[in-house]
Amino acid sequence: MTLDAPTHYADRLCSLIRAKKTPLIVGLDPRCEQLPPSMLAGHGSLVPLAIQAQLYQQFCCEIIDAVHRLIPAVKPQAAFFEQLGPAGMMALANVIEHAKSVGLMVILDAKRGDIGSTAVAYAAAYLGARPLSPWGCDALTVNPYLGEDSLEPFVTAAKKNNAGIYVLAKTSNPGSRTLQEKIVDGQPVYSHIADLLQSMAQSTIGDSGYGIVGAVVGATYPEQLWALRQQMRNTLLLIPGYGAQGGTAADVAGGFDEQGQGAVINSSRGIIFAYERREYRAIKDWQVAVAQATQDSIAEIASETRAGRISDSVIQ
Amino acid sequence: MTLDAPTHYADRLCSLIRAKKTPLIVGLDPRCEQLPPSMLAGHGSLVPLAIQAQLYQQFCCEIIDAVHRLIPAVKPQAAFFEQLGPAGMMALANVIEHAKSVGLMVILDAKRGDIGSTAVAYAAAYLGARPLSPWGCDALTVNPYLGEDSLEPFVTAAKKNNAGIYVLAKTSNPGSRTLQEKIVDGQPVYSHIADLLQSMAQSTIGDSGYGIVGAVVGATYPEQLWALRQQMRNTLLLIPGYGAQGGTAADVAGGFDEQGQGAVINSSRGIIFAYERREYRAIKDWQVAVAQATQDSIAEIASETRAGRISDSVIQ
Repeated sequence: MTLDAPTHYADRLCSLIRAKKTPLIVGLDPRCEQLPPSMLAGHGSLVPLAIQAQLYQQFCCEIIDAVHRLIPAVKPQAAFFEQLGPAGMMALANVIEHAKSVGLMVILDAKRGDIGSTAVAYAAAYLGARPLSPWGCDALTVNPYLGEDSLEPFVTAAKKNNAGIYVLAKTSNPGSRTLQEKIVDGQPVYSHIADLLQSMAQSTIGDSGYGIVGAVVGATYPEQLWALRQQMRNTLLLIPGYGAQGGTAADVAGGFDEQGQGAVINSSRGIIFAYERREYRAIKDWQVAVAQATQDSIAEIASETRAGRISDSVIQ
Repeated sequence: MTLDAPTHYADRLCSLIRAKKTPLIVGLDPRCEQLPPSMLAGHGSLVPLAIQAQLYQQFCCEIIDAVHRLIPAVKPQAAFFEQLGPAGMMALANVIEHAKSVGLMVILDAKRGDIGSTAVAYAAAYLGARPLSPWGCDALTVNPYLGEDSLEPFVTAAKKNNAGIYVLAKTSNPGSRTLQEKIVDGQPVYSHIADLLQSMAQSTIGDSGYGIVGAVVGATYPEQLWALRQQMRNTLLLIPGYGAQGGTAADVAGGFDEQGQGAVINSSRGIIFAYERREYRAIKDWQVAVAQATQDSIAEIASETRAGRISDSVIQ
């Protein structure tokens, strides 16, 4: 055992989860029509893309400032920045840099996936620290449809750059049934993917007991989440679908191991647009509403899940 | 029948294929280390990202100038531009705009895929004309792992903006076996996806007999390509894997319908880096080598496939 800060992705994440005493992460999914009225004031109903990009950057950076002491990581959603064209991509880069500068880990939700040298390019783009990686993320979500050889370049880059990936296994939408739940050799497709991910996680394991290959498993199917946790003992889980998508703290409970570790729970809309929610409307500053919603979600998760035991059980 | 230019995506593409008398499209996959030596001259071995982005833009725009009279469309690969960070994304936008300005259709190969409002954001980002869509592409490649409801926002946006999508069915890599060839209810996963795509294509059909939902099917599995052409009668095929990946003109022959229509064949490395190939090394200007390789590929495809009959058979 060493006193140096861990460099292995899973070790870094688990260490931050213990330090912050919560597995909650905040999803940065900005939308122009839901920005705080104070930010939109003075702009007409048709805000030019370049201005929208500036507003997204300001909004996300202020959220980061409001919550960075409370949580281990943020998860920007690439699509909302891509929607604004190149100006949005510049805003995304600045948001990632700001999050890193205040000690947050950054999991970019971009669901990339391709083969050969194209997968190498995606991995080089997103995984690792600046300036080697221009986007400089700690982890990236990846789509497995193209198969095992399409995942390998991401794993190679992640290993080299102390980064991680989360591969889609069982997503939170009803349409996940179309393909992910189809039965092959007696088990659903997502379970075959889970076997593959567990083997990749095992071969990249760190001191935390987790590998650098994780899985995305939605909060909206709690029984499958529980089963996948048992099936993938060394695989970090990224659990979307908590909060606005309908998943409760009880629903995500099955995603943790006996020490309350091994998973991060993402909440996006319920937190970043908290000022729109009835229970927070009385709060004058939108940033305070965001921080309060974060604290409330942390408390809710802690009270209903084994993750509530993190602070007591795993002081190493 | 009308004399107006067609607006439906498949009708536009089929009309351009007839006008150019070839289904060949050129993939724009720039890589710094393979740029023409004349472009790299004066730059050290470590070219800054912003300069690389300028070089990518110049390289792709010069390729477009060299080949735009010969082919119906180009297919930029997003990953290589994303690898350069925000500067690369700006270059990508400029390359797309330049291709459109000289009458080429643009199929962006970005393999996006997500659920709900995130899929809506991706679709709004890429599908349709500028300035409504900041990237302004005619079509986008899409990953089906998240299921039917994840495809619908793309179809809705494509319908509204006279655009199209190509959903991954059977990809050209060996690892496509991991998931795509798994047998479900007696048929492989890719064939279930094909059924879904054919039904989406049928419900968005144009005068050409093709819908706005297409499929990506690799050239490296010719028998599967032939079978999928029969299974998806109204579905445009985007066929990668021709040329550098090993697919021959004979291999792609099965992708066309009886009129030599219904598919585009992509070639990237074999064309854009033609000046590195022995047979073109004697050509002084790299742009001329690129144009020559394009003409040679067009001739090869015409001589070995039913697409060679396009010019004779389907003057409507």
